[in-house]
Amino acid sequence: MNISRRRFFGHSVAGAAALVSIPSIVSGVISKRETAGNYSLIKKSDVILFQGDSITDAGRDKEKELPNNPKSFGSGYAFHIASTLLNDLPGLELTLYNRGISGNKVYQLAERWKKDCLDLKPDLLSILIGVNDYWHLRKGEYDGTVTVYENDYRALLQHTKEHLPDVKLVICEPFAVLETSAVDDSWMGPIKEYQVAAKKMAEEFNAVWVPFQKVFDEAIKHAPATYWTGDGVHPSMAGAKLMSEAWLRSVV
Amino acid sequence: MNISRRRFFGHSVAGAAALVSIPSIVSGVISKRETAGNYSLIKKSDVILFQGDSITDAGRDKEKELPNNPKSFGSGYAFHIASTLLNDLPGLELTLYNRGISGNKVYQLAERWKKDCLDLKPDLLSILIGVNDYWHLRKGEYDGTVTVYENDYRALLQHTKEHLPDVKLVICEPFAVLETSAVDDSWMGPIKEYQVAAKKMAEEFNAVWVPFQKVFDEAIKHAPATYWTGDGVHPSMAGAKLMSEAWLRSVV
Repeated sequence: MNISRRRFFGHSVAGAAALVSIPSIVSGVISKRETAGNYSLIKKSDVILFQGDSITDAGRDKEKELPNNPKSFGSGYAFHIASTLLNDLPGLELTLYNRGISGNKVYQLAERWKKDCLDLKPDLLSILIGVNDYWHLRKGEYDGTVTVYENDYRALLQHTKEHLPDVKLVICEPFAVLETSAVDDSWMGPIKEYQVAAKKMAEEFNAVWVPFQKVFDEAIKHAPATYWTGDGVHPSMAGAKLMSEAWLRSVV
Repeated sequence: MNISRRRFFGHSVAGAAALVSIPSIVSGVISKRETAGNYSLIKKSDVILFQGDSITDAGRDKEKELPNNPKSFGSGYAFHIASTLLNDLPGLELTLYNRGISGNKVYQLAERWKKDCLDLKPDLLSILIGVNDYWHLRKGEYDGTVTVYENDYRALLQHTKEHLPDVKLVICEPFAVLETSAVDDSWMGPIKEYQVAAKKMAEEFNAVWVPFQKVFDEAIKHAPATYWTGDGVHPSMAGAKLMSEAWLRSVV
């Protein structure tokens, strides 16, 4: 047990009285959109697509890539969101896809965008991308800077809007969490730049913004960082559910 | 598109206004326990175990059988419940296992009970078993009757209480849904007998009862049966989430 686990659990009171439930954590840091809670962004027969890297991929089976299928969805935040929407909106005939792929940076989304986005004709498109753009640069495996990230991201979104002018966009904040196996202080300055760039994209393209960083920043006040994400990048079971709650509160 | 899909979707109004959300379906058919909603059954450091057949198994990876791990949990109702509890109760250091195995009948739980239940020392044990006890009998692959089911179930629970006198029990109702690929009218009389036996066990052992049948009966008023379960036994993505909502409302 590491120091932060001891710090947290050492001070917690046994039993249920000491709980702070995470719905209240999320609601404390994300303001509800005026129309949120009534699924105003989602209509009958909508196609909803989740795009991104390993955090979105979450171990999905890439053989068949079926919509509304647990194996094709993996076990991450996208699975929780899709399951919730299918359950909450039984009359709407929604078609939901997960097409996240582990290791992807924004230019790799662009390379597969026709097959994995435009051809699916999403009505709502949710993207979480950026942590590998920084991580792979940091590891010397990639030479794109944050400027490349921003320019590639803008080009991808422009291309998307040209082909799907009515698509509703959701842009999720890339995040990193300290006191975990992969993330240390030296991450936080650079990752902030990617977050600023992603938020700029949300503003330029009138997208819904999902502020994952501040959700994790709040969550780690309630349990050690590794409870939410072992390496600081990939969420645990608790972390994936937390992300889905944040997305749902921000978007629908 | 089959007849029931046309019937449902033909009459639904486009857009969000026509929605009936499933939380309201569940709350319409399951009364909240007086202490429910405050997690009064769950305490710090509790071990929670899900047991059952393929519906609980839900494609879990059986190599490592780790607690609190998405691969070891599969993609069914148990994954949703566990993710929700981990997210909602970050300070409690819960340890959650899924040990459902496809095809199991109640006597097969008994055969692996030491390893897959007693040795894990659960504080809360949730069991969903029974549909194969009927289905395999029906297919001529098994000769146990509903009386065998009840007697085996009672013996299993007595054995459990002898070794774990303080364990809190949750007994889930086996269910079957009409207008699906495997279930027809001839199921409904017999399956009712298994449901009566399971409920009797819940009463004899002072267990929390999760009435899945009436939840599905209500759900199919809002979307075709195959939206919730393709074969009438195994839930879809929507159906698994529906089950988790029913469990959470019944139990915690």
